[in-house]
Amino acid sequence: MASMAKLDWMSYKETVDTGEAIMFIPIGALEQHGPHMSMNPDVLIPEAIAEGVTNLLDNAMVAPPIAYGYKSQQQSGGGNHLPGTTSLDGATLTQTVRDIIKEFARHGIRKIVLMNGHFENSMFVVEGIDLAIRELRWDGIKDINVMILSYWDFVNEPTIERLYPDGFTGWDIEHGGVLETSLMLYLYPDLVNIDKIVDHPPAIFPPYDMFPVDPALTPASGTLSSAKNATREKGEILMDVCVNGIAKSVKEKFQ
Amino acid sequence: MASMAKLDWMSYKETVDTGEAIMFIPIGALEQHGPHMSMNPDVLIPEAIAEGVTNLLDNAMVAPPIAYGYKSQQQSGGGNHLPGTTSLDGATLTQTVRDIIKEFARHGIRKIVLMNGHFENSMFVVEGIDLAIRELRWDGIKDINVMILSYWDFVNEPTIERLYPDGFTGWDIEHGGVLETSLMLYLYPDLVNIDKIVDHPPAIFPPYDMFPVDPALTPASGTLSSAKNATREKGEILMDVCVNGIAKSVKEKFQ
Amino acid sequence: MASMAKLDWMSYKETVDTGEAIMFIPIGALEQHGPHMSMNPDVLIPEAIAEGVTNLLDNAMVAPPIAYGYKSQQQSGGGNHLPGTTSLDGATLTQTVRDIIKEFARHGIRKIVLMNGHFENSMFVVEGIDLAIRELRWDGIKDINVMILSYWDFVNEPTIERLYPDGFTGWDIEHGGVLETSLMLYLYPDLVNIDKIVDHPPAIFPPYDMFPVDPALTPASGTLSSAKNATREKGEILMDVCVNGIAKSVKEKFQ
Amino acid sequence: MASMAKLDWMSYKETVDTGEAIMFIPIGALEQHGPHMSMNPDVLIPEAIAEGVTNLLDNAMVAPPIAYGYKSQQQSGGGNHLPGTTSLDGATLTQTVRDIIKEFARHGIRKIVLMNGHFENSMFVVEGIDLAIRELRWDGIKDINVMILSYWDFVNEPTIERLYPDGFTGWDIEHGGVLETSLMLYLYPDLVNIDKIVDHPPAIFPPYDMFPVDPALTPASGTLSSAKNATREKGEILMDVCVNGIAKSVKEKFQ
Amino acid sequence: MASMAKLDWMSYKETVDTGEAIMFIPIGALEQHGPHMSMNPDVLIPEAIAEGVTNLLDNAMVAPPIAYGYKSQQQSGGGNHLPGTTSLDGATLTQTVRDIIKEFARHGIRKIVLMNGHFENSMFVVEGIDLAIRELRWDGIKDINVMILSYWDFVNEPTIERLYPDGFTGWDIEHGGVLETSLMLYLYPDLVNIDKIVDHPPAIFPPYDMFPVDPALTPASGTLSSAKNATREKGEILMDVCVNGIAKSVKEKFQ
Amino acid sequence: MASMAKLDWMSYKETVDTGEAIMFIPIGALEQHGPHMSMNPDVLIPEAIAEGVTNLLDNAMVAPPIAYGYKSQQQSGGGNHLPGTTSLDGATLTQTVRDIIKEFARHGIRKIVLMNGHFENSMFVVEGIDLAIRELRWDGIKDINVMILSYWDFVNEPTIERLYPDGFTGWDIEHGGVLETSLMLYLYPDLVNIDKIVDHPPAIFPPYDMFPVDPALTPASGTLSSAKNATREKGEILMDVCVNGIAKSVKEKFQ
Repeated sequence: MASMAKLDWMSYKETVDTGEAIMFIPIGALEQHGPHMSMNPDVLIPEAIAEGVTNLLDNAMVAPPIAYGYKSQQQSGGGNHLPGTTSLDGATLTQTVRDIIKEFARHGIRKIVLMNGHFENSMFVVEGIDLAIRELRWDGIKDINVMILSYWDFVNEPTIERLYPDGFTGWDIEHGGVLETSLMLYLYPDLVNIDKIVDHPPAIFPPYDMFPVDPALTPASGTLSSAKNATREKGEILMDVCVNGIAKSVKEKFQ
Repeated sequence: MASMAKLDWMSYKETVDTGEAIMFIPIGALEQHGPHMSMNPDVLIPEAIAEGVTNLLDNAMVAPPIAYGYKSQQQSGGGNHLPGTTSLDGATLTQTVRDIIKEFARHGIRKIVLMNGHFENSMFVVEGIDLAIRELRWDGIKDINVMILSYWDFVNEPTIERLYPDGFTGWDIEHGGVLETSLMLYLYPDLVNIDKIVDHPPAIFPPYDMFPVDPALTPASGTLSSAKNATREKGEILMDVCVNGIAKSVKEKFQ
Repeated sequence: MASMAKLDWMSYKETVDTGEAIMFIPIGALEQHGPHMSMNPDVLIPEAIAEGVTNLLDNAMVAPPIAYGYKSQQQSGGGNHLPGTTSLDGATLTQTVRDIIKEFARHGIRKIVLMNGHFENSMFVVEGIDLAIRELRWDGIKDINVMILSYWDFVNEPTIERLYPDGFTGWDIEHGGVLETSLMLYLYPDLVNIDKIVDHPPAIFPPYDMFPVDPALTPASGTLSSAKNATREKGEILMDVCVNGIAKSVKEKFQ
Repeated sequence: MASMAKLDWMSYKETVDTGEAIMFIPIGALEQHGPHMSMNPDVLIPEAIAEGVTNLLDNAMVAPPIAYGYKSQQQSGGGNHLPGTTSLDGATLTQTVRDIIKEFARHGIRKIVLMNGHFENSMFVVEGIDLAIRELRWDGIKDINVMILSYWDFVNEPTIERLYPDGFTGWDIEHGGVLETSLMLYLYPDLVNIDKIVDHPPAIFPPYDMFPVDPALTPASGTLSSAKNATREKGEILMDVCVNGIAKSVKEKFQ
Repeated sequence: MASMAKLDWMSYKETVDTGEAIMFIPIGALEQHGPHMSMNPDVLIPEAIAEGVTNLLDNAMVAPPIAYGYKSQQQSGGGNHLPGTTSLDGATLTQTVRDIIKEFARHGIRKIVLMNGHFENSMFVVEGIDLAIRELRWDGIKDINVMILSYWDFVNEPTIERLYPDGFTGWDIEHGGVLETSLMLYLYPDLVNIDKIVDHPPAIFPPYDMFPVDPALTPASGTLSSAKNATREKGEILMDVCVNGIAKSVKEKFQ
Repeated sequence: MASMAKLDWMSYKETVDTGEAIMFIPIGALEQHGPHMSMNPDVLIPEAIAEGVTNLLDNAMVAPPIAYGYKSQQQSGGGNHLPGTTSLDGATLTQTVRDIIKEFARHGIRKIVLMNGHFENSMFVVEGIDLAIRELRWDGIKDINVMILSYWDFVNEPTIERLYPDGFTGWDIEHGGVLETSLMLYLYPDLVNIDKIVDHPPAIFPPYDMFPVDPALTPASGTLSSAKNATREKGEILMDVCVNGIAKSVKEKFQ
């Protein structure tokens, strides 16, 4: 079923009227990801995962992604000072999430999964969910359930050990590294140019943030760890573990 | 060149640093368009036109579209009460436009074209442009130029006469009619099912609007005029006249 | 009955308590209208029409007008760069409309007519109505009905042919032209100085807008078409057709 | 000169271009004022005073009043629960004031007088001024000066003793009492019906406010003190002392 | 009982579940108060009074104070241009009040007392209360009661005569004067240095305000009247009259 | 020096005028922390640490804490459904941070440290910093530097190993556990009742969040891990490592 936007409205209505429909909303960003990759992995990856998950579920659909996200932070995305990175104010993202959830609820959807692909989005999306649920409650709609997840949280320990045999340093500095590059190699190989990968040690940051950022702390490539060890095969493994893990969780909660 | 999001950030930076880059931002909607068509023509069509135009220009790029738009109005989109139609509050759309323009300006872009595909968006986009220019001015950036257009305004009189031999009733009630269906037949034939076209006379509305809307005024199909006479060929003609007309205007203003 | 503000509150309460009261809210602008006319036609005209309409109805009142409107657009008002034009941000207008509708609803009014006199206001007023109806719904008030209209949409074809024997070029470029000047000559002749009318061909605009505007595209007078053919008699005809047409529509919907 | 809105824009521009123009903006409310009076004294009185003051000054103009104000408070206006009283949220009033000041500054005005006629408005107007000055500063405009006053603060001690021989109990409970009724009898006798004046002792309130208000604390008339002793002559005296006092202050600061 | 924040949540819940709990919220400011005193009297004093009052009541608690308030006004606090004074925009204060009231109501609290210590806060706090009550109503909570008071309004005439034998000039210019200094001498003598008191005549202001302020109108000390006559004893008297008066009012309304 | 609010404004001004002043702003929350502890550790701890740090620095001060924070999340604070927890909307917190930073900058402060004590605050504080820096830039202030930190990020590996000999499960589920309880035992032993500590295994959460939350996932105590092993000595160690680590970082960046 996959794309909700590709349905005509009457077919969509039929699905919603079953009372069982699940809507996935990918939330990404337009953000630099190093010289070797396009600037849209944060939206393409969760969209692809959402499509994968919907194939394993009944009555599940993927809404058009929210393609712009919250400002890139230096310790998780290199910083919002870099060219190409194109971000929203927090309130803008929050209101977008709020509005869209409320509209799907108006249609009759009661099960929504927000699939996040950009580290910095989480709290503003959480606030958007909270505001939507509040306003829906004011409208007498009290039976909506919203799941929010970041896909990398479904990469389990065995997979991490398999993919990072030399040790894993945390999802935050995976920006433009093995995780995202492998997934893009698997999903959109045309958007990766492995010859341009810059091999550098993981970025090291102090236990605080400075504003304005000191650009010198971000590696010149814009990536926070090296994608040198990224492969299409790792991308497939990651895709599998995320799609299956998320599908399992969604089934448990929603079906 | 086309998609800005598909570039890596260093290639993007090179283009921007020429000082001649032009950024196209398609702005659409997620809105029912009758039982015969998907719900995304308002975003797919301006995106396709933008891509067509950039092929005729140097240093031109298309940004990820704004995929959700302002609330559908009964006399131009059937109304926002219909399932499937998924809209933003006006302030949300305005702030999204404001934020994105400001970010491109931060990168160094000074020539921006907002390509609208959803009738109801215009004024909220205009406000977003105005706020962006105001804040950029506060930041000392006073040389930005933003063009806003709705693609159908480039369909000239000869084309209208050719495509609507029985008379043309205005762009507003073209919702889901010949214009959009022909373009979709040309661009995305898989998203149109001509067997499901409902042939009905053009919707007739009083010279005022009521809120809440009276659903009975919207044809049951959700379209405001019949798509019966839509053809792939008309879509090609429309595409040509829009792409060429817009390219000409952009060149005149920006190159 | 006419002016609501001129009533004492107990008389007002009596009218509202009939359950049949209709409130007209004129919404205008403070905007240059050429060297031959005051800057308030967009508020004086809809207010006068509203008063005319209420004379034909029972229990109908006119609220104090919203005297400042949305930013003048070049293709319909000359542009917001001109001195004298004094406009609100879109959100300010939207919230004003929202607040006022909610207050009248609190009093017990369930029938409201927003009478617009400024082209650029429409969408921000629509958003204000939508927000008001939403919040009233949260307060358990679900039986309010709001009509919005722009008075010129009630000038029918026969009248257009009679008033524009040389052809009609659209309401948008009527700014400061025959329509508004005739109405002002009829309603407030002291605010028009026909000796200062600048006779110029209709303004010609490209099928797009630029921001910041190019001031050279607006005729030096600030008007978009010539008021040379404006007369008091045409004003009377326009007044009649608008008052009667609107009264008829309001009766049909509300009485 | 008086009304700015009655000028054509070129005449207005001439005045502004002197660099000496002073703009008065009356700020009122739509609020019940007892059974003996219309609901618009808070806007009509400061507007009339502003007109009176401009007659004593050069290059001074009165802008269209802000006709809706902040919510009526029980201890100064009877409370916002009463029918007829039609108020704005604080943020709406603040943004309106901000927007209008900024627009006049854009025209070139540097001397603005906000003439308040509604007790409850003051702080939200102050905030609007502060935001306007801040944003104008961001635009490089640092020489604007804004005066804000409530006209009753110009009623000096000798006048108070003359008008209230039995003792004066404070401006806050003058709501619908001698001050406003006398001024309306002088300015707009048709909007006062002295036969309907309710003679009651001054309202007595505790040293705190409760929300929601206890309606029983507001006299049934809606007035907070009796207008029985109001006369046209007192209105003339008040008008004189306000007009002359304000003119003197404005001259000192601005000329 | 006093401090709510010092309770563990289960003890708090027990109190709230009695249905009789009263929550006091002190609202202050961080504002210069002359060279002889710390910058926090506007928050310390109402907090101390609230604690005093809760000792006389059952089930009463004091919430953490709102420590930052609205912008200092020249005629009541010297003006917001002075160093040290650290203020919020009006909307920020309003939203803070709204959010906190709503949260206490969610817990089950139905009796709230906002104890104001900063003249300029009042109207923005009132708006916050109004918005909270509105949104709680949307949530079906219609039995909440909020009292708002400024503690000085409980200083009765006999006390004023006793403390100001030479005449009292109004609470507004008491900024940093006898009232606040005496209370601080009684409550926090370490935060007062009487040797640094500047003895000057009461500030004199015109019957209007100018923005930006003319700094010369504020006495160089930042105080608006002299604290020379302040004593610890007067502080104790003031404390007594406020605590007892407020406790009496709260009991009447809430117990 | 410590508390900024305890200074008189002239002493404060002197410190600021050195050009070397550093302002610490503690940001906390009012949040349940289990049955054994008060609800204010998130504000008391960072305030105490800030005071400790300022003792090691010159010209450093602590501003009054922001005592209310963002909504408690289930996986890091038990969830915002629990009584006692009293939170702000995201936008309210963001605007508070923005306003306060701007005010300190207006005074002349150029070095600010935001010391966070509540996990959920971070991103909304970051947004507040970003907005403040943006608006200060519009005011021509471009040399401000803001550090943001959460104190637990200064607890280094050796300390973690020493304090959690049985293994450390992450800061997020430390809510009400050993870290916070030990610090409170050291700083405010009166606010901890070790007899009420509930010993339970660490909370286990799925790799996603649900809204509304399922209350059953939060341990009945409200804590996410057991505080059984908390001691005053551990609190002292934590205090030392945080104070010294932060002082070192601040010196490096600011002195």
